[in-house]
Amino acid sequence: MKAAQFFGQRDIRVVDVPKPEPKDHEALVAIEWCGICGSDLHEYLIGPAVIPRKERPHPLTGEYLPVTLGHEFCGRIVSAPEGSALAPGQAVMIDPRIYCSKCSRCTASSTNACRSWGFKGYSGSGGGFSEAVAIDANLCYALPDSVDLKLAVLIEPLAVAWHAIAISEVSDWTSKSVLILGGGPVGIAHIYVLQAKRCKKILVSEPTSMRAAQNKEIADRVFNPIGENVGNRCRELTAGEGVDVVFDCAGIQKGMDAGMDALSYRGVYMNVAGWETQMVVPSSQMLLKELTLKASMAYDDKDFKETVDAFVAGKFNGVERMVTSRIHIDDITSKGFEELVTNKDKHIKIMVTTHKDKV
Amino acid sequence: MKAAQFFGQRDIRVVDVPKPEPKDHEALVAIEWCGICGSDLHEYLIGPAVIPRKERPHPLTGEYLPVTLGHEFCGRIVSAPEGSALAPGQAVMIDPRIYCSKCSRCTASSTNACRSWGFKGYSGSGGGFSEAVAIDANLCYALPDSVDLKLAVLIEPLAVAWHAIAISEVSDWTSKSVLILGGGPVGIAHIYVLQAKRCKKILVSEPTSMRAAQNKEIADRVFNPIGENVGNRCRELTAGEGVDVVFDCAGIQKGMDAGMDALSYRGVYMNVAGWETQMVVPSSQMLLKELTLKASMAYDDKDFKETVDAFVAGKFNGVERMVTSRIHIDDITSKGFEELVTNKDKHIKIMVTTHKDKV
Repeated sequence: MKAAQFFGQRDIRVVDVPKPEPKDHEALVAIEWCGICGSDLHEYLIGPAVIPRKERPHPLTGEYLPVTLGHEFCGRIVSAPEGSALAPGQAVMIDPRIYCSKCSRCTASSTNACRSWGFKGYSGSGGGFSEAVAIDANLCYALPDSVDLKLAVLIEPLAVAWHAIAISEVSDWTSKSVLILGGGPVGIAHIYVLQAKRCKKILVSEPTSMRAAQNKEIADRVFNPIGENVGNRCRELTAGEGVDVVFDCAGIQKGMDAGMDALSYRGVYMNVAGWETQMVVPSSQMLLKELTLKASMAYDDKDFKETVDAFVAGKFNGVERMVTSRIHIDDITSKGFEELVTNKDKHIKIMVTTHKDKV
Repeated sequence: MKAAQFFGQRDIRVVDVPKPEPKDHEALVAIEWCGICGSDLHEYLIGPAVIPRKERPHPLTGEYLPVTLGHEFCGRIVSAPEGSALAPGQAVMIDPRIYCSKCSRCTASSTNACRSWGFKGYSGSGGGFSEAVAIDANLCYALPDSVDLKLAVLIEPLAVAWHAIAISEVSDWTSKSVLILGGGPVGIAHIYVLQAKRCKKILVSEPTSMRAAQNKEIADRVFNPIGENVGNRCRELTAGEGVDVVFDCAGIQKGMDAGMDALSYRGVYMNVAGWETQMVVPSSQMLLKELTLKASMAYDDKDFKETVDAFVAGKFNGVERMVTSRIHIDDITSKGFEELVTNKDKHIKIMVTTHKDKV
């Protein structure tokens, strides 16, 4: 079958690989759509970073590059383990995570931080940019017919935001003002989840005009950090107090400086971004406002299930706007990864399929 | 009356000042003891830092240097407002804070972060290194005869620890392991409060041998960060997981690096120290362990009251060890501040009085 594999920096090849053979506990899933994630692009440009090299295979899969890419994917059941509720043809969204279920973090329900964490699409055992995967039936979430499989893939990035929002120490968002640093795909996913939670005020700091335009359609206000003092703007819109929570979806120092300044007393700075540097925390802001800095990584089983449920219940109003292009796997480099390199800000999410009739 | 005032760097003078005249809502308190705090020493060496200068008087007192120093003090009521429960002769511990009671933080009970915060002993309106103060009767906490006024002053530094421990997101300390960075007076106050909360394991990182010896008498283990890998030692003592909470009572980068490394997954790093630099947070530790960094500043009314109650109830077992010297105000520079400059690690808390018969 066809699969897009990562061979090295800027080297993705669509190759022929054997069809996966499901083990006893696994379902075989025919993939319909798989999204390109910012982390995939990061891997494409400077990887292998998360993808294991030969010298250090993934501890659970034993695999290393080349590996099939793609971890945001949905499809339909081809076969399921005996006794499973999943019938052939059933539409499913996939939780792509790989975890050991045995370490102290997994047994404490924090499978997102498994000591051997991995993802299908990075760590071996297949990935979403292919025709099919074999995967633990427990990681296949059945979707009703009412859900459009063309959009279901968005559940994965929404689950990332869901987790960050869940661990933010906020129980009631209806009275909270939020600043999102970076209006890219992760930032936008946060907007949709915060809207589902009826967040009072959603402000975004985004320097590029194209992204700003996308954000303006859904956020309450969008600031340009080049030229605008984001902290002052946030205080103007919050009776002088500052925002309650910042979600850092950018991972750059200037963003942190502005975000810490924008926070109210006892505000929470939640980092969702990958950082290529250390974080320099302005200590006087931190101390005098008794701020909290937290970090969020991926999502756990509960987050994923809750995001699926919210998606099925239609809570992410307008989320179809996140899909900016649909392409065939044969074009994954030119119309996918290179398109994102050239026109990153034009896109939110590019969806890939192996089905010629779908694009 | 006698008062020790700060005139500038390394310039404290015992001068004669007018006796304070209490306003309608104020009590007049004859001071018995006042402790020298690390922040006082900091002010002595590099101030004025917190103490207001002429160009920028304190917004609530309108005062600026010279000001009377000392914010850890107790005494006896001389006179109290009409209708007050405080009778002359009543022993009282003083909450030395100055706050406006009107700003958004004060009205939300976070008087510790008042937008105009100050302290008697830094911001004008008198201080503890003197014969008497006039102070809002609500800030005078009556102490029963069972409490030794020679020790009651320790309530103030204990309240600092009480607040940090209260906002650490931990409800039950009996299952928690803690690392304290810096075994000076603030670190030691944390040990006593954590012991009062029946904390499971208290580990301390302290580089000087004299301080380490003081800490060994009360903590479960004391590490020397020069030569020992604090993270590894903490993991050895916590079944490989790391500590649940770090209290940073040092405020230096090497401490933060070790503390972040020592934390378990979802651990909390609570900063109580003043930092003279920015904090550089190791982002991979932060992200992969989903850590929380928080900051604590002073204490609010509830913290102070709870600390007084715990002190009166005898919860701080052995806390008298914190007092390492008692001196007369006339000797405050030579036997107080300069003694701390020369023999800092020998001392935990030096107590000062204006009463010749008490030393």
